[in-house]
Amino acid sequence: MIENRFSAPGLVNTLKNRAGFNDDEIDLFINLLELKVLKKKEHHFMAGEVCNYSAYVKKGCLRRYIIDEHSKEIIVNFALEDYWVGDLESLISRKPSIYYFQALEESELLMLSYKNYCYLYNSLPKYKNFHDEKVKRNHYATIKKLSAAKSASPEEKYITLMQEQPQLFQRIPLHYIAAYLGIEPESLSRLRKRMVVKLKIS
Amino acid sequence: MIENRFSAPGLVNTLKNRAGFNDDEIDLFINLLELKVLKKKEHHFMAGEVCNYSAYVKKGCLRRYIIDEHSKEIIVNFALEDYWVGDLESLISRKPSIYYFQALEESELLMLSYKNYCYLYNSLPKYKNFHDEKVKRNHYATIKKLSAAKSASPEEKYITLMQEQPQLFQRIPLHYIAAYLGIEPESLSRLRKRMVVKLKIS
Repeated sequence: MIENRFSAPGLVNTLKNRAGFNDDEIDLFINLLELKVLKKKEHHFMAGEVCNYSAYVKKGCLRRYIIDEHSKEIIVNFALEDYWVGDLESLISRKPSIYYFQALEESELLMLSYKNYCYLYNSLPKYKNFHDEKVKRNHYATIKKLSAAKSASPEEKYITLMQEQPQLFQRIPLHYIAAYLGIEPESLSRLRKRMVVKLKIS
Repeated sequence: MIENRFSAPGLVNTLKNRAGFNDDEIDLFINLLELKVLKKKEHHFMAGEVCNYSAYVKKGCLRRYIIDEHSKEIIVNFALEDYWVGDLESLISRKPSIYYFQALEESELLMLSYKNYCYLYNSLPKYKNFHDEKVKRNHYATIKKLSAAKSASPEEKYITLMQEQPQLFQRIPLHYIAAYLGIEPESLSRLRKRMVVKLKIS
Protein backbone atom coordinates (compact mmCIF):
# COMPACT_ATOMS: atom_id res chain seq x y z
CA MET A 1 0.00 0.00 0.00
CA ILE A 2 1.51 3.35 -0.99
CA GLU A 3 0.13 6.66 0.33
CA ASN A 4 1.38 10.21 0.07
CA ARG A 5 0.59 11.78 3.45
CA PHE A 6 2.68 11.29 6.60
CA SER A 7 4.59 13.07 9.34
CA ALA A 8 8.13 12.07 10.24
CA PRO A 9 9.72 14.17 13.02
CA GLY A 10 12.61 11.69 13.41
CA LEU A 11 13.54 11.98 9.75
CA VAL A 12 13.20 15.79 9.73
CA ASN A 13 15.52 15.90 12.74
CA THR A 14 18.07 13.70 10.95
CA LEU A 15 17.93 15.77 7.76
CA LYS A 16 18.35 18.98 9.74
CA ASN A 17 21.10 17.92 12.16
CA ARG A 18 23.01 15.24 10.26
CA ALA A 19 22.60 16.38 6.66
CA GLY A 20 22.46 20.11 7.40
CA PHE A 21 19.34 20.58 5.22
CA ASN A 22 17.51 23.92 5.44
CA ASP A 23 13.68 24.06 5.55
CA ASP A 24 13.31 24.20 1.74
CA GLU A 25 15.61 21.21 1.29
CA ILE A 26 13.70 19.26 3.93
CA ASP A 27 10.42 20.04 2.11
CA LEU A 28 11.92 19.02 -1.23
CA PHE A 29 13.19 15.73 0.24
CA ILE A 30 10.01 14.85 2.12
CA ASN A 31 7.83 15.60 -0.92
CA LEU A 32 9.76 13.04 -2.94
CA LEU A 33 9.03 10.22 -0.47
CA GLU A 34 6.30 7.60 -0.68
CA LEU A 35 4.85 5.84 2.34
CA LYS A 36 4.69 2.04 2.21
CA VAL A 37 2.94 0.06 4.93
CA LEU A 38 4.07 -3.52 5.41
CA LYS A 39 2.04 -6.08 7.32
CA LYS A 40 3.85 -8.30 9.82
CA LYS A 41 5.84 -10.94 7.89
CA GLU A 42 5.34 -9.11 4.56
CA HIS A 43 8.49 -8.67 2.44
CA HIS A 44 9.72 -5.24 1.42
CA PHE A 45 11.56 -7.00 -1.39
CA MET A 46 13.08 -10.38 -2.09
CA ALA A 47 16.29 -11.86 -3.48
CA GLY A 48 16.18 -11.90 -7.27
CA GLU A 49 14.39 -8.54 -7.42
CA VAL A 50 16.12 -5.24 -8.13
CA CYS A 51 16.03 -2.88 -5.14
CA ASN A 52 14.10 0.19 -6.34
CA TYR A 53 14.07 2.30 -3.18
CA SER A 54 16.21 3.68 -0.39
CA ALA A 55 13.78 3.43 2.53
CA TYR A 56 13.67 5.06 5.96
CA VAL A 57 12.03 3.02 8.74
CA LYS A 58 9.39 5.36 10.21
CA LYS A 59 7.88 2.62 12.36
CA GLY A 60 8.44 -1.08 12.83
CA CYS A 61 11.19 -3.64 12.52
CA LEU A 62 12.63 -5.52 9.54
CA ARG A 63 15.23 -8.21 9.10
CA ARG A 64 17.73 -8.53 6.22
CA TYR A 65 18.50 -12.17 5.46
CA ILE A 66 19.93 -14.46 2.82
CA ILE A 67 18.99 -18.05 2.04
CA ASP A 68 22.21 -20.05 1.82
CA GLU A 69 23.12 -23.07 -0.33
CA HIS A 70 21.61 -25.39 2.28
CA SER A 71 18.26 -23.48 2.12
CA LYS A 72 18.95 -22.05 5.57
CA GLU A 73 17.90 -18.49 6.41
CA ILE A 74 20.85 -16.41 7.65
CA ILE A 75 19.92 -13.11 9.31
CA VAL A 76 22.45 -10.40 8.44
CA ASN A 77 20.94 -7.59 10.52
CA PHE A 78 17.80 -6.02 11.96
CA ALA A 79 16.49 -2.51 11.20
CA LEU A 80 14.41 -0.55 13.69
CA GLU A 81 13.02 3.01 13.64
CA ASP A 82 15.42 5.60 12.17
CA TYR A 83 17.37 2.95 10.20
CA TRP A 84 17.54 2.96 6.39
CA VAL A 85 16.82 -0.28 4.57
CA GLY A 86 17.64 -1.40 1.06
CA ASP A 87 20.41 -3.01 -0.95
CA LEU A 88 22.49 -0.07 -2.15
CA GLU A 89 24.53 -2.25 -4.51
CA SER A 90 21.37 -3.44 -6.26
CA LEU A 91 19.83 0.06 -6.20
CA ILE A 92 22.84 1.61 -7.94
CA SER A 93 23.83 -1.25 -10.25
CA ARG A 94 20.19 -2.10 -11.15
CA LYS A 95 21.11 -5.77 -10.71
CA PRO A 96 19.03 -8.26 -8.68
CA SER A 97 19.62 -8.28 -4.94
CA ILE A 98 20.82 -11.33 -3.02
CA TYR A 99 18.94 -10.19 0.12
CA TYR A 100 15.41 -10.53 1.50
CA PHE A 101 13.95 -7.70 3.60
CA GLN A 102 10.99 -8.77 5.71
CA ALA A 103 8.85 -6.87 8.25
CA LEU A 104 8.80 -8.58 11.66
CA GLU A 105 6.11 -6.15 12.88
CA GLU A 106 3.64 -3.98 10.97
CA SER A 107 6.06 -1.39 9.57
CA GLU A 108 5.98 1.95 7.80
CA LEU A 109 8.68 2.87 5.31
CA LEU A 110 9.31 6.29 3.74
CA MET A 111 10.71 5.43 0.36
CA LEU A 112 12.90 7.38 -2.04
CA SER A 113 12.66 5.86 -5.54
CA TYR A 114 15.76 5.11 -7.60
CA LYS A 115 14.89 8.00 -9.94
CA ASN A 116 14.54 10.49 -7.06
CA TYR A 117 17.59 9.06 -5.30
CA CYS A 118 19.68 9.78 -8.45
CA TYR A 119 18.12 13.22 -8.81
CA LEU A 120 18.98 14.21 -5.22
CA TYR A 121 22.40 12.54 -5.24
CA ASN A 122 23.41 14.43 -8.39
CA SER A 123 21.76 17.80 -7.74
CA LEU A 124 21.95 18.31 -3.96
CA PRO A 125 25.56 18.04 -2.66
CA LYS A 126 24.33 18.00 0.95
CA TYR A 127 22.37 14.82 0.21
CA LYS A 128 25.38 13.23 -1.52
CA ASN A 129 27.57 14.02 1.51
CA PHE A 130 24.95 12.80 3.99
CA HIS A 131 24.45 9.60 2.01
CA ASP A 132 28.15 8.88 1.50
CA GLU A 133 28.93 9.57 5.18
CA LYS A 134 26.15 7.12 6.10
CA VAL A 135 27.74 4.48 3.85
CA LYS A 136 31.10 5.06 5.56
CA ARG A 137 29.62 4.65 9.06
CA ASN A 138 27.80 1.49 7.93
CA HIS A 139 31.03 0.21 6.42
CA TYR A 140 33.01 0.70 9.66
CA ALA A 141 30.25 -1.07 11.62
CA THR A 142 30.10 -3.93 9.11
CA ILE A 143 33.88 -4.60 9.25
CA LYS A 144 33.58 -4.76 13.06
CA LYS A 145 30.63 -7.15 12.76
CA LEU A 146 32.69 -9.28 10.38
CA SER A 147 35.52 -9.43 12.95
CA ALA A 148 32.97 -10.36 15.65
CA ALA A 149 31.30 -12.97 13.41
CA LYS A 150 34.71 -14.65 13.07
CA SER A 151 35.69 -14.48 16.71
CA ALA A 152 32.95 -13.81 19.24
CA SER A 153 31.08 -16.61 21.02
CA PRO A 154 27.24 -16.65 20.79
CA GLU A 155 27.26 -15.24 24.34
CA GLU A 156 29.46 -12.30 23.31
CA LYS A 157 27.31 -11.67 20.22
CA TYR A 158 24.19 -11.75 22.41
CA ILE A 159 25.65 -9.12 24.76
CA THR A 160 26.60 -6.88 21.80
CA LEU A 161 23.09 -7.15 20.34
CA MET A 162 21.58 -6.35 23.77
CA GLN A 163 23.75 -3.22 23.89
CA GLU A 164 23.09 -2.12 20.30
CA GLN A 165 19.39 -2.95 19.83
CA PRO A 166 17.91 -3.74 23.27
CA GLN A 167 14.34 -3.10 21.98
CA LEU A 168 14.58 -6.18 19.75
CA PHE A 169 14.32 -8.52 22.73
CA GLN A 170 10.90 -7.12 23.65
CA ARG A 171 9.63 -6.88 20.10
CA ILE A 172 10.46 -9.96 18.05
CA PRO A 173 10.25 -13.73 18.63
CA LEU A 174 13.45 -15.14 20.10
CA HIS A 175 13.94 -17.63 17.27
CA TYR A 176 14.97 -14.66 15.08
CA ILE A 177 17.59 -13.68 17.67
CA ALA A 178 18.82 -17.29 17.69
CA ALA A 179 19.05 -17.27 13.86
CA TYR A 180 21.01 -14.02 14.00
CA LEU A 181 23.43 -15.51 16.55
CA GLY A 182 23.73 -18.68 14.47
CA ILE A 183 22.47 -21.00 17.21
CA GLU A 184 19.38 -23.16 17.78
CA PRO A 185 16.48 -21.60 19.78
CA GLU A 186 17.04 -24.19 22.57
CA SER A 187 20.69 -23.10 22.88
CA LEU A 188 19.53 -19.47 23.14
CA SER A 189 17.18 -20.38 26.02
CA ARG A 190 20.07 -22.07 27.87
CA LEU A 191 22.36 -19.11 27.14
CA ARG A 192 19.76 -16.69 28.56
CA LYS A 193 19.39 -18.80 31.73
CA ARG A 194 23.17 -18.92 32.22
CA MET A 195 23.33 -15.13 31.82
CA VAL A 196 20.56 -14.56 34.39
CA VAL A 197 22.50 -16.72 36.88
CA LYS A 198 25.71 -14.77 36.11
CA LEU A 199 23.94 -11.43 36.63
CA LYS A 200 22.53 -12.63 39.98
CA ILE A 201 26.00 -13.75 41.12
CA SER A 202 27.81 -10.58 40.05
CA MET B 1 61.96 3.12 5.78
CA ILE B 2 60.40 5.95 3.78
CA GLU B 3 61.74 7.01 0.37
CA ASN B 4 60.48 9.39 -2.26
CA ARG B 5 61.30 7.70 -5.59
CA PHE B 6 59.21 4.93 -7.14
CA SER B 7 57.30 3.89 -10.24
CA ALA B 8 53.76 2.55 -10.01
CA PRO B 9 52.16 1.67 -13.36
CA GLY B 10 49.29 -0.20 -11.63
CA LEU B 11 48.35 2.84 -9.57
CA VAL B 12 48.67 5.21 -12.55
CA ASN B 13 46.35 2.91 -14.48
CA THR B 14 43.81 2.94 -11.63
CA LEU B 15 43.94 6.73 -11.27
CA LYS B 16 43.48 7.16 -15.01
CA ASN B 17 40.76 4.59 -15.66
CA ARG B 18 38.87 4.38 -12.37
CA ALA B 19 39.25 7.92 -11.03
CA GLY B 20 39.36 9.68 -14.41
CA PHE B 21 42.46 11.70 -13.47
CA ASN B 22 44.28 13.62 -16.22
CA ASP B 23 48.10 13.64 -16.43
CA ASP B 24 48.46 16.72 -14.20
CA GLU B 25 46.19 15.20 -11.54
CA ILE B 26 48.13 11.93 -11.67
CA ASP B 27 51.39 13.86 -11.18
CA LEU B 28 49.91 15.83 -8.28
CA PHE B 29 48.69 12.62 -6.61
CA ILE B 30 51.88 10.63 -7.12
CA ASN B 31 54.04 13.49 -5.84
CA LEU B 32 52.14 13.47 -2.56
CA LEU B 33 52.89 9.79 -1.89
CA GLU B 34 55.65 8.33 0.27
CA LEU B 35 57.12 4.87 -0.23
CA LYS B 36 57.33 2.63 2.82
CA VAL B 37 59.09 -0.73 2.67
CA LEU B 38 58.00 -3.34 5.19
CA LYS B 39 60.05 -6.39 6.01
CA LYS B 40 58.30 -9.75 6.21
CA LYS B 41 56.32 -9.90 9.50
CA GLU B 42 56.78 -6.15 10.11
CA HIS B 43 53.66 -4.23 11.13
CA HIS B 44 52.37 -1.30 9.06
CA PHE B 45 50.55 -0.19 12.22
CA MET B 46 49.06 -1.77 15.31
CA ALA B 47 45.87 -1.62 17.35
CA GLY B 48 45.96 1.33 19.74
CA GLU B 49 47.73 3.54 17.19
CA VAL B 50 45.96 6.15 15.06
CA CYS B 51 46.02 5.26 11.34
CA ASN B 52 47.93 8.12 9.67
CA TYR B 53 47.94 6.95 6.04
CA SER B 54 45.78 5.61 3.27
CA ALA B 55 48.22 3.17 1.63
CA TYR B 56 48.31 1.50 -1.79
CA VAL B 57 49.98 -1.93 -1.94
CA LYS B 58 52.58 -1.62 -4.70
CA LYS B 59 54.12 -4.99 -3.89
CA GLY B 60 53.60 -7.66 -1.28
CA CYS B 61 50.89 -9.02 0.93
CA LEU B 62 49.46 -7.87 4.26
CA ARG B 63 46.89 -9.21 6.67
CA ARG B 64 44.40 -7.18 8.75
CA TYR B 65 43.66 -8.85 12.07
CA ILE B 66 42.28 -8.22 15.51
CA ILE B 67 43.23 -9.83 18.81
CA ASP B 68 40.03 -10.91 20.52
CA GLU B 69 39.13 -11.12 24.22
CA HIS B 70 40.68 -14.58 24.42
CA SER B 71 44.00 -13.24 23.02
CA LYS B 72 43.33 -15.07 19.76
CA GLU B 73 44.34 -13.50 16.42
CA ILE B 74 41.37 -13.20 14.04
CA ILE B 75 42.26 -12.45 10.42
CA VAL B 76 39.71 -10.11 8.85
CA ASN B 77 41.19 -9.98 5.35
CA PHE B 78 44.31 -10.13 3.20
CA ALA B 79 45.58 -7.34 0.92
CA LEU B 80 47.64 -8.05 -2.18
CA GLU B 81 48.99 -5.79 -4.96
CA ASP B 82 46.57 -3.04 -6.05
CA TYR B 83 44.63 -3.14 -2.74
CA TRP B 84 44.47 -0.17 -0.38
CA VAL B 85 45.21 -0.75 3.29
CA GLY B 86 44.40 1.30 6.35
CA ASP B 87 41.64 1.86 8.88
CA LEU B 88 39.53 4.61 7.33
CA GLU B 89 37.52 5.11 10.52
CA SER B 90 40.70 5.74 12.52
CA LEU B 91 42.19 7.88 9.72
CA ILE B 92 39.17 10.19 9.61
CA SER B 93 38.20 10.22 13.30
CA ARG B 94 41.86 10.41 14.49
CA LYS B 95 40.99 7.79 17.11
CA PRO B 96 43.09 4.66 17.78
CA SER B 97 42.50 1.71 15.48
CA ILE B 98 41.34 -1.70 16.69
CA TYR B 99 43.20 -3.43 13.83
CA TYR B 100 46.72 -4.71 13.21
CA PHE B 101 48.18 -4.59 9.66
CA GLN B 102 51.16 -6.87 9.18
CA ALA B 103 53.26 -7.67 6.10
CA LEU B 104 53.34 -11.40 5.32
CA GLU B 105 56.01 -10.84 2.63
CA GLU B 106 58.43 -7.97 2.10
CA SER B 107 55.99 -5.28 0.95
CA GLU B 108 56.02 -1.82 -0.56
CA LEU B 109 53.32 0.69 0.29
CA LEU B 110 52.65 4.03 -1.41
CA MET B 111 51.25 6.13 1.37
CA LEU B 112 49.05 9.21 1.35
CA SER B 113 49.32 11.02 4.70
CA TYR B 114 46.22 12.16 6.60
CA LYS B 115 47.04 15.80 5.78
CA ASN B 116 47.38 15.09 2.04
CA TYR B 117 44.34 12.79 2.10
CA CYS B 118 42.24 15.69 3.49
CA TYR B 119 43.75 18.14 1.01
CA LEU B 120 42.90 15.92 -1.99
CA TYR B 121 39.50 14.88 -0.64
CA ASN B 122 38.45 18.50 -0.16
CA SER B 123 40.06 20.10 -3.22
CA LEU B 124 39.88 17.46 -5.97
CA PRO B 125 36.28 16.25 -6.53
CA LYS B 126 37.53 13.39 -8.76
CA TYR B 127 39.50 12.01 -5.82
CA LYS B 128 36.51 12.37 -3.48
CA ASN B 129 34.32 10.46 -5.95
CA PHE B 130 36.95 7.78 -6.57
CA HIS B 131 37.49 7.35 -2.83
CA ASP B 132 33.79 7.26 -1.91
CA GLU B 133 33.02 4.79 -4.74
CA LYS B 134 35.83 2.58 -3.41
CA VAL B 135 34.26 2.69 0.07
CA LYS B 136 30.90 1.67 -1.42
CA ARG B 137 32.40 -1.30 -3.28
CA ASN B 138 34.24 -2.37 -0.12
CA HIS B 139 31.02 -2.01 1.83
CA TYR B 140 29.05 -4.27 -0.54
CA ALA B 141 31.84 -6.87 -0.39
CA THR B 142 32.01 -6.68 3.41
CA ILE B 143 28.25 -7.24 3.86
CA LYS B 144 28.56 -10.32 1.63
CA LYS B 145 31.53 -11.55 3.67
CA LEU B 146 29.48 -11.02 6.83
CA SER B 147 26.66 -13.16 5.36
CA ALA B 148 29.23 -15.81 4.39
CA ALA B 149 30.90 -15.68 7.82
CA LYS B 150 27.53 -16.48 9.37
CA SER B 151 26.54 -19.23 6.96
CA ALA B 152 29.30 -20.78 4.88
CA SER B 153 31.20 -23.88 5.95
CA PRO B 154 35.02 -23.72 6.09
CA GLU B 155 35.00 -25.63 2.78
CA GLU B 156 32.77 -22.99 1.13
CA LYS B 157 34.90 -20.16 2.55
CA TYR B 158 38.03 -21.92 1.24
CA ILE B 159 36.54 -22.12 -2.28
CA THR B 160 35.56 -18.43 -2.18
CA LEU B 161 39.08 -17.42 -1.09
CA MET B 162 40.57 -19.61 -3.85
CA GLN B 163 38.38 -17.77 -6.38
CA GLU B 164 39.02 -14.27 -5.03
CA GLN B 165 42.72 -14.38 -4.10
CA PRO B 166 44.23 -17.55 -5.62
CA GLN B 167 47.77 -16.11 -5.34
CA LEU B 168 47.56 -16.30 -1.54
CA PHE B 169 47.85 -20.08 -1.58
CA GLN B 170 51.27 -19.90 -3.28
CA ARG B 171 52.53 -16.96 -1.26
CA ILE B 172 51.72 -17.28 2.44
CA PRO B 173 51.98 -20.09 5.02
CA LEU B 174 48.79 -22.12 5.24
CA HIS B 175 48.32 -21.46 8.95
CA TYR B 176 47.24 -17.92 8.00
CA ILE B 177 44.62 -19.35 5.64
CA ALA B 178 43.43 -21.61 8.47
CA ALA B 179 43.20 -18.62 10.85
CA TYR B 180 41.20 -16.71 8.23
CA LEU B 181 38.81 -19.65 7.82
CA GLY B 182 38.52 -20.00 11.60
CA ILE B 183 39.83 -23.59 11.71
CA GLU B 184 42.93 -25.35 13.00
CA PRO B 185 45.82 -25.91 10.52
CA GLU B 186 45.29 -29.70 10.81
CA SER B 187 41.64 -29.32 9.79
CA LEU B 188 42.76 -27.26 6.77
CA SER B 189 45.13 -30.06 5.68
CA ARG B 190 42.27 -32.58 5.89
CA LEU B 191 39.94 -30.19 4.03
CA ARG B 192 42.51 -29.78 1.23
CA LYS B 193 42.92 -33.54 0.92
CA ARG B 194 39.13 -34.02 0.72
CA MET B 195 38.93 -31.38 -2.00
CA VAL B 196 41.70 -32.98 -4.07
CA VAL B 197 39.77 -36.28 -3.91
CA LYS B 198 36.55 -34.48 -4.93
CA LEU B 199 38.28 -32.78 -7.87
CA LYS B 200 39.71 -36.14 -9.06
CA ILE B 201 36.26 -37.76 -8.89
CA SER B 202 34.42 -34.92 -10.66
